[in-house]
Amino acid sequence: MIKIAVLGYGTVGSGVVEVIEKNRDMVNKKSGEELEIKYILDLREFPGDPYESKIVHDFGRILADDEVRILCETMGGVGAAYDFTRQALAAGKSVCTSNKELVAAHGPELLALAREHCCNYLFEASVGGGIPIIRPLNYSLTAERIEAITGILNGTTNYILSKMEYEGADYDAVLREAQEKGYAERNPEADVEGHDACRKIAILSSLMTGKNVDYRKIYTEGITKVEPLDFAYAKQMGMSIKLLALSKEAGDKTLAMVSPFLIDAGHPLHMVNGVFNAVFVRGNMLGDSMYYGRGAGKLPTASAVVSDVIDCARHIGKVIMCFWDAEEADLLSIDQVERRFFFRVKTEGREKAAELFGRELKEVRLASAPDECGLVTSVMTEADFAERYGKLAGVTAGGRLRIEG
Amino acid sequence: MIKIAVLGYGTVGSGVVEVIEKNRDMVNKKSGEELEIKYILDLREFPGDPYESKIVHDFGRILADDEVRILCETMGGVGAAYDFTRQALAAGKSVCTSNKELVAAHGPELLALAREHCCNYLFEASVGGGIPIIRPLNYSLTAERIEAITGILNGTTNYILSKMEYEGADYDAVLREAQEKGYAERNPEADVEGHDACRKIAILSSLMTGKNVDYRKIYTEGITKVEPLDFAYAKQMGMSIKLLALSKEAGDKTLAMVSPFLIDAGHPLHMVNGVFNAVFVRGNMLGDSMYYGRGAGKLPTASAVVSDVIDCARHIGKVIMCFWDAEEADLLSIDQVERRFFFRVKTEGREKAAELFGRELKEVRLASAPDECGLVTSVMTEADFAERYGKLAGVTAGGRLRIEG
Repeated sequence: MIKIAVLGYGTVGSGVVEVIEKNRDMVNKKSGEELEIKYILDLREFPGDPYESKIVHDFGRILADDEVRILCETMGGVGAAYDFTRQALAAGKSVCTSNKELVAAHGPELLALAREHCCNYLFEASVGGGIPIIRPLNYSLTAERIEAITGILNGTTNYILSKMEYEGADYDAVLREAQEKGYAERNPEADVEGHDACRKIAILSSLMTGKNVDYRKIYTEGITKVEPLDFAYAKQMGMSIKLLALSKEAGDKTLAMVSPFLIDAGHPLHMVNGVFNAVFVRGNMLGDSMYYGRGAGKLPTASAVVSDVIDCARHIGKVIMCFWDAEEADLLSIDQVERRFFFRVKTEGREKAAELFGRELKEVRLASAPDECGLVTSVMTEADFAERYGKLAGVTAGGRLRIEG
Repeated sequence: MIKIAVLGYGTVGSGVVEVIEKNRDMVNKKSGEELEIKYILDLREFPGDPYESKIVHDFGRILADDEVRILCETMGGVGAAYDFTRQALAAGKSVCTSNKELVAAHGPELLALAREHCCNYLFEASVGGGIPIIRPLNYSLTAERIEAITGILNGTTNYILSKMEYEGADYDAVLREAQEKGYAERNPEADVEGHDACRKIAILSSLMTGKNVDYRKIYTEGITKVEPLDFAYAKQMGMSIKLLALSKEAGDKTLAMVSPFLIDAGHPLHMVNGVFNAVFVRGNMLGDSMYYGRGAGKLPTASAVVSDVIDCARHIGKVIMCFWDAEEADLLSIDQVERRFFFRVKTEGREKAAELFGRELKEVRLASAPDECGLVTSVMTEADFAERYGKLAGVTAGGRLRIEG
């Protein structure tokens, strides 16, 4: 019998309890031992809850209880969650978490602490919700040199973009609807500005390189400037617009960034719609592979946390391999990255655009927007594009989009 | 230093050598120890090959060498491969294989033998080539009750069907082209009749149920009867035709089958084209997830074999968990399975079809086939459909297709 504690009885925490309860037979069989939730830490009371008797308010009780071998940290944030995780690991208790902020901010330190105390810090649920991606990277693609990871890692923004694409609705209206349905937070900034996807690609990039990719250094652009007309142009070009989080080998450096991109209908990520997430991985032997599923939600995320609990239960007293050193990865400035770009100009700017970008610009016209046109550049660096595009101030219509692939 | 032997220096076997050589740093780092190929078993000579000095013709030498801890069985077939695998496992040497015939035929026996002798029998490469699917099922989706697995598991047939779909070509012409390009064997039966996909879904079904699903009892239908006109109807309906291998919980029983199916454009498997494979998994907590990548080919398959070698290297003397008992899974007869069906009748049979299937039949017409029409039934059992459809003998045009979802 292995006793566990759940820290935070919110959406994911209560999901963890539900998964362990509902799939008890499977979970115990796969763990090789019976698991029992001994404590649930939360500041609130839960009168009438079936697990009321397990609720405690003092982390010290959990820490002092030698029976408790595994903790599920489903509190979020980098305050108390960080403190509790450090104390637990230092006491030799394994911690399984869905907390991407904490993993992105302190991953290498917490992994080192776990190693030192012969326990484990696992975080499958921190990226891609229920999609197995951390474990495939760590245990399955072990014979590969991973060259690139491209993900749709945030369900809220993917839902908003899918709605804009299929219903022609504008950003604000779709955001309001998503908030009403509970798919977006009342303060949506972390999602729509790309911060959530940034934390997640920082984690995946770190596992890809084996070094620490600092999320604060990742170029991050959200979806707030994407307009319905951009989707009309995308459709005309056989493309879609997705918020991509990507990480690529670039010589000795790593390129990591989050931005809306135009992607072709032939790309497997094109079909990832609504709240689904997907991670596209390119290895030097395997080529392309993709992992797709629900990137958020109570039960999918909880299922990933519980899969970590099972892994910890099987490895009591043993350290599970994870290569993520504290050494900083060297990130490539995006200025030097080459790609094609799409932008829109008013009709009076068309000639100037041609002067600036050369005659190889490809034009896309929409019957519904007679006063402007869309333009696709040849491959050029970000810096080069930004400089030329800046000279079009006053005659552009809407924003510009990067083109992936 | 861990010494390994490769059995069979064919496509996959030489790929294993190449992956270990090319990604040496990564492979050694992930293994936690240096790996060295000590022997390559093959009946042929390879004069001038850089590994010529490692070639041996006598399995006994490998078996007798206590330094050799891990074998890669990339021979195929169920003759010598079966013998050698049993002898190796009985001697406490782990075996990693890409041999789906052997795994499907003797999986539980070989797993039990490995357990008994404290070593491992791993077979990630036996299904989906380089796509991580065995390990995600065994180690990642551990908190899930898996309810259904639906896969595109054979690259040759998927290539043929994709070509037929996009180029309107007929089966024989595309098969010939695939043979010329090396995507299909000179004797293509194992692929085109569905036998290969059948072995693979037997393996996945066994891991899903934890019991042994006998591949010989799985209903299997190949793609040889699919006609170009079927794709025209599919397109008209917003669908595609794929050879699906599926396994589903059905009460206390399991439904497993291989057959061409019509699937909707909205289904994630719809976009799996050419030689790519994908496995779609439904869990009771996670919902839908999908694993996509190259289902065959020298390096992708070899990469999966080497990931197993790394797993064995990390677990020398320890048994890696795998739930696949010898107890026979109870398979549902497909007669009882309910779904919709598509079939084609000549114009003179239209009225009779309506009499047999009721007025709820949906009609699909193609301008290019004025003398017939396509019909979609309501949901009914296979047995019920077969009985009514049989009464249309003489007035049908082409075959019938199952509709998934």
